[in-house]
Amino acid sequence: MIAAASECRVSLPPVIEYDADRADLPLVVVPVSIPSMTTLLRDRLDEFAGLARVRIHTDWTDDEDVLAARMSDATVVMSTGFRASARLLERIAGRVRCITFCGTGAVSFIDLEAARRLGITICNAVHYGDNAVAEHAIALMFEHTHRVGELNARTHQGGWPGADITELSGRTLGIIGLGGIGRRVSRLAHGIGLRLLVWDRHPDAAELAALNAESAATMDEVFSRADIVSLHLALNDATRGIIGPAQLDLMRPGALLVNTARAELIEPGAMLRRLSRGDIAAAIDVTAPEPLPDDDPLRTLPNLIITPHVAWRSDRALAALVEQNVRSAVEFLKGGAYNVLV
Amino acid sequence: MIAAASECRVSLPPVIEYDADRADLPLVVVPVSIPSMTTLLRDRLDEFAGLARVRIHTDWTDDEDVLAARMSDATVVMSTGFRASARLLERIAGRVRCITFCGTGAVSFIDLEAARRLGITICNAVHYGDNAVAEHAIALMFEHTHRVGELNARTHQGGWPGADITELSGRTLGIIGLGGIGRRVSRLAHGIGLRLLVWDRHPDAAELAALNAESAATMDEVFSRADIVSLHLALNDATRGIIGPAQLDLMRPGALLVNTARAELIEPGAMLRRLSRGDIAAAIDVTAPEPLPDDDPLRTLPNLIITPHVAWRSDRALAALVEQNVRSAVEFLKGGAYNVLV
Repeated sequence: MIAAASECRVSLPPVIEYDADRADLPLVVVPVSIPSMTTLLRDRLDEFAGLARVRIHTDWTDDEDVLAARMSDATVVMSTGFRASARLLERIAGRVRCITFCGTGAVSFIDLEAARRLGITICNAVHYGDNAVAEHAIALMFEHTHRVGELNARTHQGGWPGADITELSGRTLGIIGLGGIGRRVSRLAHGIGLRLLVWDRHPDAAELAALNAESAATMDEVFSRADIVSLHLALNDATRGIIGPAQLDLMRPGALLVNTARAELIEPGAMLRRLSRGDIAAAIDVTAPEPLPDDDPLRTLPNLIITPHVAWRSDRALAALVEQNVRSAVEFLKGGAYNVLV
Repeated sequence: MIAAASECRVSLPPVIEYDADRADLPLVVVPVSIPSMTTLLRDRLDEFAGLARVRIHTDWTDDEDVLAARMSDATVVMSTGFRASARLLERIAGRVRCITFCGTGAVSFIDLEAARRLGITICNAVHYGDNAVAEHAIALMFEHTHRVGELNARTHQGGWPGADITELSGRTLGIIGLGGIGRRVSRLAHGIGLRLLVWDRHPDAAELAALNAESAATMDEVFSRADIVSLHLALNDATRGIIGPAQLDLMRPGALLVNTARAELIEPGAMLRRLSRGDIAAAIDVTAPEPLPDDDPLRTLPNLIITPHVAWRSDRALAALVEQNVRSAVEFLKGGAYNVLV
């Protein structure tokens, strides 16, 4: 979800102001941004007409002093994914009354307890990226079976590296959590011929029947029977560390673990230890922490495919996200509420 | 299709013999092989019991002198993808009476006219890899949209390279040729929410309806309207060079060309020239020639994803392939015919 080191192909001014001379209006601040979101936000600024001035900082920083200074005179802050610790929230509380968050899992980026205590409203976005993230989960599976990215890199370097591949169709995909994304992954996987074994706390019989999916009695059953296990749980107190060595040990040789949800669903260190045995593989879009430290041993594992939390960043997902965040900000300024989390 | 530089993880003897002491029986020779096919062939040797001796060379060479020497006393040759030029066929003709080919498109590897003239029966394999190749076409598309392989390589090198991605669902996929593989690609793509625009010389109305696919009146219509154009024609005199600058110029900025069929469907040099303009991309599993020379300018294009003709090499496809090739060899030895091409 973190957007540092983004690729900038467009030329943007360091700050974009909307109605800057309307000092009578409250200020909306975007303290850091990435080019794709900046462009989408800029195209929607008229929605703030008569309600607020807007100031978009188009660069990125993780420096809390800079972030605090940029937010110091804002009433509403639109977050594109910076870390809002309790300390940072305390520095801006009083003036800042609402933060919109560019995603669903705000808990990983904003100290929600501190926000509640300080009276800062937090809005998130929902289902904006279900298809983008679901497709990314499938793309991670395809890189494991068909090795396109790996073989492309090697072929661009020279030679003709013959290699065997495998197929997805006919394999058993275990789905942990049948929410919006889990459902969409299931539909895509069903469409390409995977068999589905689903575990959910509240299984939806009609949905399972439509997918020709089998319902697993326990999470452990999924880990022990599936060729691929894909995690699609939200992170909360009930799910943090819900997967540990006991589950990972159940995975069969040759199996693949896919995580496009949250790294913290798995006990710290458990995935590294299981992968180090070398008989299973994993493909993940999420780590803890993010960004992953350069010396993290995960980076050295040959049986781990890692993408840097990009699954949510599709063109369509970003457009839906910005639309929801702008609506949350506008509704808050009008005294209403949209997608209020805290 | 060429299997050079294969990855060897298993330890195999240089030559595997079956019933070597039965000099009364004709000899079947596998002059070069790759580990995965060697293992599959070895497991089926009993099918030759009482019919032939078998000798499998487990290494790889493109040296015609070595190939000719290895085939010099064979009645049946099982090809795992070496080049059989007219000159090589002339050297082995008389003794060798049948060659089984490990794929469908034998024309790219064996001089079929020379084989016909020399009285050598050529058998191929059909539909063995339809799903493997179709999945590979989809995997090439996913690497273009979700960039998993590229971002994985960069993340393993360090850093946290934020990047935007795109989605496949909702895009229009143009299918050129609705044979076995084109049909399977269409089904997979339909399952993941792509819209289909199909061109085929003999469109199958029922199949198109089942896929909710639109039939294009001309090939040019597909090139001008589709977000992704995927080639699935067999290579023959009617299709060689069927796609030229006129078609490629019709492709829209941002469009993607996918080729898992044969490079020779496109006029020599036309794809390189079109890609050099930078506004479209391509993802291919086939080149001309194969292996691609190390100094070929295609290797330097940032908007080209290349895999080294591996789409056919899945575990299941190889198993089906070996099964068909063994059956062709056995039937020939019994005086019958199976999958006879020439």
